[in-house]
Amino acid sequence: MDVFDLNVLPSVLATTPEADYGAWVLTGVLLTLVVIYLASKLGGELSKRLNLPPVLGELVGGVVVGVSALHLLMFPESGAAASDSVMMSLLQQLGNLDTAALTQIFQSQSEVISVLAELGVIVLLFEIGLESDLRELGKVGYQAAVVAVVGVAAPFMLGTVGLVMLFHAPVIPAIFAGAALTATSIGITSKVLSELGHLKSTEGQIIVGAAVIDDVLGIIVLAVVASLAKTGEVDLLNVVYLIGSASAFLLGSICLGKFFNKSFVAIADKLQTRGALLIPAFTFALVMACLANVIHLEAILGAFAAGLVLDETDKRKELDQQVMPIADILVPIFFVTVGAKADLGVLNPAVAENRAGLIIATFLIVVAILGKVVTGWAVLGQPQVNRLAIGVGMVPRGEVGLVFAGIGSASGVLDKPLEAAIIVMVILTTFLAPPMLQWALAKPPAEPETEPAVAAVEVPAGD
Amino acid sequence: MDVFDLNVLPSVLATTPEADYGAWVLTGVLLTLVVIYLASKLGGELSKRLNLPPVLGELVGGVVVGVSALHLLMFPESGAAASDSVMMSLLQQLGNLDTAALTQIFQSQSEVISVLAELGVIVLLFEIGLESDLRELGKVGYQAAVVAVVGVAAPFMLGTVGLVMLFHAPVIPAIFAGAALTATSIGITSKVLSELGHLKSTEGQIIVGAAVIDDVLGIIVLAVVASLAKTGEVDLLNVVYLIGSASAFLLGSICLGKFFNKSFVAIADKLQTRGALLIPAFTFALVMACLANVIHLEAILGAFAAGLVLDETDKRKELDQQVMPIADILVPIFFVTVGAKADLGVLNPAVAENRAGLIIATFLIVVAILGKVVTGWAVLGQPQVNRLAIGVGMVPRGEVGLVFAGIGSASGVLDKPLEAAIIVMVILTTFLAPPMLQWALAKPPAEPETEPAVAAVEVPAGD
Repeated sequence: MDVFDLNVLPSVLATTPEADYGAWVLTGVLLTLVVIYLASKLGGELSKRLNLPPVLGELVGGVVVGVSALHLLMFPESGAAASDSVMMSLLQQLGNLDTAALTQIFQSQSEVISVLAELGVIVLLFEIGLESDLRELGKVGYQAAVVAVVGVAAPFMLGTVGLVMLFHAPVIPAIFAGAALTATSIGITSKVLSELGHLKSTEGQIIVGAAVIDDVLGIIVLAVVASLAKTGEVDLLNVVYLIGSASAFLLGSICLGKFFNKSFVAIADKLQTRGALLIPAFTFALVMACLANVIHLEAILGAFAAGLVLDETDKRKELDQQVMPIADILVPIFFVTVGAKADLGVLNPAVAENRAGLIIATFLIVVAILGKVVTGWAVLGQPQVNRLAIGVGMVPRGEVGLVFAGIGSASGVLDKPLEAAIIVMVILTTFLAPPMLQWALAKPPAEPETEPAVAAVEVPAGD
Repeated sequence: MDVFDLNVLPSVLATTPEADYGAWVLTGVLLTLVVIYLASKLGGELSKRLNLPPVLGELVGGVVVGVSALHLLMFPESGAAASDSVMMSLLQQLGNLDTAALTQIFQSQSEVISVLAELGVIVLLFEIGLESDLRELGKVGYQAAVVAVVGVAAPFMLGTVGLVMLFHAPVIPAIFAGAALTATSIGITSKVLSELGHLKSTEGQIIVGAAVIDDVLGIIVLAVVASLAKTGEVDLLNVVYLIGSASAFLLGSICLGKFFNKSFVAIADKLQTRGALLIPAFTFALVMACLANVIHLEAILGAFAAGLVLDETDKRKELDQQVMPIADILVPIFFVTVGAKADLGVLNPAVAENRAGLIIATFLIVVAILGKVVTGWAVLGQPQVNRLAIGVGMVPRGEVGLVFAGIGSASGVLDKPLEAAIIVMVILTTFLAPPMLQWALAKPPAEPETEPAVAAVEVPAGD
């Protein structure tokens, strides 16, 4: 009857280090999340007080806690050792850990944070899909499509050709950087428009419609370019295959969606336990993300398609509301991580070899603005329309541009000056768009729809 | 000016395997999450149709996909190799991966899922803290406290002494198993009461009040016992220190909370960006979880205390609503993982050496029921009260009991027969409580307050 004596005490002794190791990984992850949330909220709120999009502040917050400054949030794949991370040094002191254990904890903690960041982009793109409305496109129709296509083609061509011609860049990084110039941020653009009270104007409708199409095009471009980066060469057949499969995947899932919609609502209505709507929807997004990954597209494309499909259901509003808190806690992990991984040190003009990066950044910013501003003049059959406002409305990059920077950096296709130049381009287009749009719409600054900004900035700390 | 040519193409080639490795870890995590959600929803819904608590079905769902049956969700710390996992075999075929790469992917994927499961318990206990109401205790007061204390002491003593005396178990596993017998599940108990329409009766008030106190006591017992398991011996001074620090931590944070409440609301009110309430609250929970971890208590105790503190604010309802979707997606990962890790094979009576485990399980179940039923007779000064109903209402274990099983298993203090016996005890008390409570309240089965159960069971799949 003595089932315990044989193996319990030895196994306690044998597994205690492992259990401790797990506890320290957990402590490391919890502390890292605290740093990420503090950085994102401090940055986001500061940004908001300055009437800039909060996402910008989250990114800058990441830069502050990351490799460029405080060294709290470091990643081994950039070549950092556990001893380079202030967080790991803290854990070492708290737990009296040796270097080998610490290296393993650093590795595991970074792995977990990286996957959480990837789940963050997946949820973000799922949410963007849910917020995108295919019916809106019907109304603004032709004009929006023309603006979107020109707004993708012009900066892509200008950027890629310019980088190859002027900077003698190899083709793949040039294409990647050109692709990062394409996608307008729906979130930032529609937020800026609503803050200026122009969301429902003809210009506003065209901008939002174009931004939706632009986002789809941008993600197809991303999938194409990221796959190209993996194979390491420009294979025209592969490009055609990828454009085909990306389009087929997206359009196929939308068409299939018309059928799946009803099953989805029927399933969600039948479920009686907690998460009756959320879990099937989230599972669907994960399945689509897996599927996209397995057919060599990006996981986020699947999540976006899942969002577009579920946006067509009656449950859309309820689902949107439930996905929001999940996005609130996961998405900042992505933006702060992107900021933390960006080594802005390469843009220090005091170092001679960095000046190339700064020149590239300047070039990218000019192309990013010009390539979008021209789209206003592509609008036909609307003589009364404010062309400059439409073009300027397409300028802010944001999420998708940062996704390019992150994936380009992770796959190693972007070197640090170019990655940093893209991030600077995203930051600056996002920075410049709100005042430029105010000016283009030739109106005195309207009151924002949300609470008025106050001077004092509070620390959103939890201590 | 040629900043690219030098290092981009070699670095593409050098980092492609690593980038691919990351993509396969992500695919593994996404697929595992899909399996977890399918198992939890199928199990939960089936359970609900059978008028049993959904959490029970999630656990059983985990058993089905785990080491006991389908081998989809396996963990290397139980000694499984990557080739034992059906999921990993699938990835190997999809990606043409070699054994070394697969082992590393298996390790990383399991690490991520384990941390997600731990975040799941943290969020669960944060939510239980948010749902626990200190003011409720004031009303039911003395009776609830007596029921709670007797309901912790009786099964703990009976279980521990019985295991040592009858089964010659070593002291630490016996204490651990005794501790696992203590905590009543607030969620299950209050749900069963509300389904029977007895939540507002005197008996119902006393049961819910006692379950709240019980939960706090249970978590202190858990912290004490888990720390004991770490040191491997019964150190009386340490017990006193731990009881002291656990109580001081919990009471201290509640007292401090009275002060922090106002700062918290003030901070949340000042924030203007998304997650203005959720991110500070979640960060607070993480800080408290870290703090608890660092002073050698369990992280979940910190999360529970954070929940209790924030329950006192005006923002409680809003916060509750926002934490719910996060709990919906994270908590099932914990329950399914606990089920998946439980090797029920040791309870197969056909194997001679397993019979010990079954005898233990029978003993634990008897103690679990008797130890709680006696509490009804501890109620003084309420001659009209239905003592049997109060006792029976305290019977269901659920979440906290499973937390014991999970932590005991992770720290290696519980051998497999005892761990499985605890899980069988939790499953059976949870199973038996609803019909027993119906019978004790001597009423015909009332209609549940939620939608009526339907016969058909739908697959909550996303494909």
